[in-house]
Amino acid sequence: MIWPAAMNEHRTIPTPTALIADMGARARAAAAIVSQASTAAKSAALQHAAKALRETRDTILSANKDDMTRGTANGLSPALLDRLKLDPERIEGIAGALESVASLPDPVGELIDSSTPPNGLELSRVRIPLGVIGIIYESRPNVTADAGALCLMAGNAAILRGGSEAIESSRAIHGCLVTGLRKAGLPEDAIQLVPTTDREAVGAMLRASGLIDIIVPRGGKGLVARVQDEARVPVLAHLDGICHTYVHAAAEPEMARSIAVNAKMRRTGICGAMETLLIDAQFPDAAALVAALIEAGCEVRGDEAVQALDNRVVVVAAEDWDTEYLEPIVSAAMVEGLDAALAHIAAHSSGHTDAIVTEDLDAATRFLATVDSAIVMHNASSQFADGGEFGLGAEIGISTGRLHARGPVALEGLTTYKWIARGKGNIRP
Amino acid sequence: MIWPAAMNEHRTIPTPTALIADMGARARAAAAIVSQASTAAKSAALQHAAKALRETRDTILSANKDDMTRGTANGLSPALLDRLKLDPERIEGIAGALESVASLPDPVGELIDSSTPPNGLELSRVRIPLGVIGIIYESRPNVTADAGALCLMAGNAAILRGGSEAIESSRAIHGCLVTGLRKAGLPEDAIQLVPTTDREAVGAMLRASGLIDIIVPRGGKGLVARVQDEARVPVLAHLDGICHTYVHAAAEPEMARSIAVNAKMRRTGICGAMETLLIDAQFPDAAALVAALIEAGCEVRGDEAVQALDNRVVVVAAEDWDTEYLEPIVSAAMVEGLDAALAHIAAHSSGHTDAIVTEDLDAATRFLATVDSAIVMHNASSQFADGGEFGLGAEIGISTGRLHARGPVALEGLTTYKWIARGKGNIRP
Repeated sequence: MIWPAAMNEHRTIPTPTALIADMGARARAAAAIVSQASTAAKSAALQHAAKALRETRDTILSANKDDMTRGTANGLSPALLDRLKLDPERIEGIAGALESVASLPDPVGELIDSSTPPNGLELSRVRIPLGVIGIIYESRPNVTADAGALCLMAGNAAILRGGSEAIESSRAIHGCLVTGLRKAGLPEDAIQLVPTTDREAVGAMLRASGLIDIIVPRGGKGLVARVQDEARVPVLAHLDGICHTYVHAAAEPEMARSIAVNAKMRRTGICGAMETLLIDAQFPDAAALVAALIEAGCEVRGDEAVQALDNRVVVVAAEDWDTEYLEPIVSAAMVEGLDAALAHIAAHSSGHTDAIVTEDLDAATRFLATVDSAIVMHNASSQFADGGEFGLGAEIGISTGRLHARGPVALEGLTTYKWIARGKGNIRP
Repeated sequence: MIWPAAMNEHRTIPTPTALIADMGARARAAAAIVSQASTAAKSAALQHAAKALRETRDTILSANKDDMTRGTANGLSPALLDRLKLDPERIEGIAGALESVASLPDPVGELIDSSTPPNGLELSRVRIPLGVIGIIYESRPNVTADAGALCLMAGNAAILRGGSEAIESSRAIHGCLVTGLRKAGLPEDAIQLVPTTDREAVGAMLRASGLIDIIVPRGGKGLVARVQDEARVPVLAHLDGICHTYVHAAAEPEMARSIAVNAKMRRTGICGAMETLLIDAQFPDAAALVAALIEAGCEVRGDEAVQALDNRVVVVAAEDWDTEYLEPIVSAAMVEGLDAALAHIAAHSSGHTDAIVTEDLDAATRFLATVDSAIVMHNASSQFADGGEFGLGAEIGISTGRLHARGPVALEGLTTYKWIARGKGNIRP
């Protein structure tokens, strides 16, 4: 069973399971090669891919037009159509992102630590690529380039499975990545795109234990929930971003307003957006805080104490505390002190990002130590929860899991390590 | 549904699933407390436990006698009975191991790295406990103490499920750990022992996603295979230790003999024991190497070229290359150069430990870089593959998985990290 390396053509496939098994085996072989590739070769592949994107811009736009036409006919929502749409500026953005990943420090080969135990061995732990990464995503065609680039730069092979809405756009972008790999002398199988839109292919990826080392879902809650539920391969993801901001009694009022409005309203659709505001009962400026949110265009759903602050506050329901709105809506509770805030967060946080606003360093220290989330913040907006903002150069996603990598994940999270022991004929007594 | 904290008594349990759900919830609550416990409190708990072991030695020996009597009646093999058996010396060994873990550096709170990106946030990554660890083990009663101690020292709660053969011994040892926790003022639920020997309790642990963060199986291949197969919780383990030693053309002959004999024969039953010897066709002293193994009492199963070296070599079968003997048996192949050795290892290694013996540094460097195993060695015996030998002070196990922790795993592997972002009112533009 032989398929061309660049998976840009339609063809008859025996079964999704056989397809993924074949792609996985070829990815594994490619991974063995790219794991040893030089930084220069990996960077060159991404720079050539960026060039190819610019040179084939019209082809990509035409492929995207096909997706848009089909999407419009299929009644995709305006929001989905906007995510799907490419224009010259967005293509330039994708090319620029490739160049940016190409310039990131290469994590492969990094010495993590070393030691010489009493047995005389020279021991070291060295960072190596993870292996084969499966990316399952929805309608954003840029993920094809972003995810493929990050996987490659960390020395991995990638199997990309984009949403059916964006399949033509993804194929055109994937073609540019393959061009880049070829021009840099790297195996084209290092970044493969699943050629079928059959949903069963996703199931086959999720069961591809031994072929795929980790799956990263990129998309809405429905996709992530399905992946987490069905996967027999480890998953790096977050299901929800139910982020809290706790305004402590000793918060500086103007700072509290500014952070709360930014955390909620800068962009309401991102996973780091605040969904619940906890106001300390001793915070002296609570009414102005709630008013600032409402005046910024936010619906505030409050408990009785918050309702008493402003008659524009609407009644909160029990399920609001566990709801990720991703809209200009916030749930708000009045809490009696730090312990009550910690208890609320322990009960309702999704483990993504939670923040405290206070001038009291002891309270901040206890909050930062106690809240068991991937990211904890003091006097900052939770909207900063992002790999780029954290200096990682990019991100493959944000993980709320506890194993391997937590919070924003970029190149380092796509690596593992090996132990190297150097002896001089050492035998164990 | 209330059960006493110390799970030393028999009682009626509704179902294994309800039992594990209750233990998991209590472990989660205990984990929140021990995650914040001081190094001194955790150390004190283990030192008190060691004292309790010595003070209740006769009780433990009597419990162990019950296990031994039942085991003998049930026809356990002499090897299993030996693993099960405790005597004053072994109890002293367990107590000493507790004290040794108590003196290890505390990983919790360790600063992994820090940075200040252009947005001005003071960012740091800080090591924190993993949460709730499930340990599933067989007949060695010392695992109760070793595993419980490592989990606690890394700030975690542990749910221990020992083999039915050792249940009375495990209960007695677990009682000492609970004494230690109580005397140190830590929650007794931080180290729980599953009170039933019902095998369904293992299944319930393996499905306890959200309650148990990671499962570590300690035991034979049957146990590990079942755990890896059924678990819906991440598993840290190795199924096989099919360790290779490649004697390169430029190996120093005496060193090669010494390493090969040690790697195979020092202890044949451990996972780091050599199972396959690869001899380079250009290695000038191959016959003496094979003879040294045979004269040390090892059965050598060789391919035709190895058979030609010594008439005591027996014929190797295809399945031998994928067999972990754990006995004085080795499979041996003659290979045509480094690339052939690398190909053999890529095809048959279990990813545990593989070694090269050579005086050629270029060959060694390529071997260490290319072999994709948790541990790679140069001029050393694979029997060193052990947390204690690697300076970790102890080990919860050796992982051949690629995620989170690889090779020998001790305290650091039982932790994760959180991101802490400190601002001065920073909002995201």
